[in-house]
Amino acid sequence: MIELNFEKMGGLIPAIAQDYKTGDVLMLAFMNREAWEETLKTGKATYYSRTRDTLWVKGLTSGHIQNVKEIRVDCDSDTVLLKVDQVGGAACHTGYASCFYQKVDDGRLVTLGEPIFDPKEVYKE
Amino acid sequence: MIELNFEKMGGLIPAIAQDYKTGDVLMLAFMNREAWEETLKTGKATYYSRTRDTLWVKGLTSGHIQNVKEIRVDCDSDTVLLKVDQVGGAACHTGYASCFYQKVDDGRLVTLGEPIFDPKEVYKE
Repeated sequence: MIELNFEKMGGLIPAIAQDYKTGDVLMLAFMNREAWEETLKTGKATYYSRTRDTLWVKGLTSGHIQNVKEIRVDCDSDTVLLKVDQVGGAACHTGYASCFYQKVDDGRLVTLGEPIFDPKEVYKE
Repeated sequence: MIELNFEKMGGLIPAIAQDYKTGDVLMLAFMNREAWEETLKTGKATYYSRTRDTLWVKGLTSGHIQNVKEIRVDCDSDTVLLKVDQVGGAACHTGYASCFYQKVDDGRLVTLGEPIFDPKEVYKE
């Protein structure tokens, strides 16, 4: 059994999702122990939603799940890196491929690229 | 001025450092507002050490600083991604290129690769 350090952040660890093919960093979310164990068991990235206080299987609503290809653990076992196959090509709830679609440019934020999907269509808002 | 959401995590945001050339994820650390502003001002990755409760210019002791080439901000402005030029080729205090040198393999952790430097030499422990 792999023991991660959930104590450092009150039961949570940060989890970075990276596209396993392009190397693009897609998003950062948090896992509690249950989310970690579910991810290991199912092979689908499962996080913990702090706002909703519940497990969150990424993509369950949108269909844009993350199939986990590889998991890395950092030097002090308090952060994980998931190399994932992002179904639908977009990890962000805004429709962008990556949540990191804003770049700092001369003291302001510039949006890079275009959304891949329309959140209104996907989430039926 | 770029406004990040430091409130969500009690004054901190997670900061991911990624090698700007290879795309390898090197480490995750935290920034408070001061660390963020120092990073913007100096172009050198500056974090906040939770254990030492102080600003931490990455590489100040080891010489392995991170020159920031690009900064990305995520969709809800509570996480940043630094694309860095890692001086010395190793981001991890253990001497490995990346902090994520352990891979989950069949329920256990396997170490990948070899350290680039000997921490005993670099930190004069």
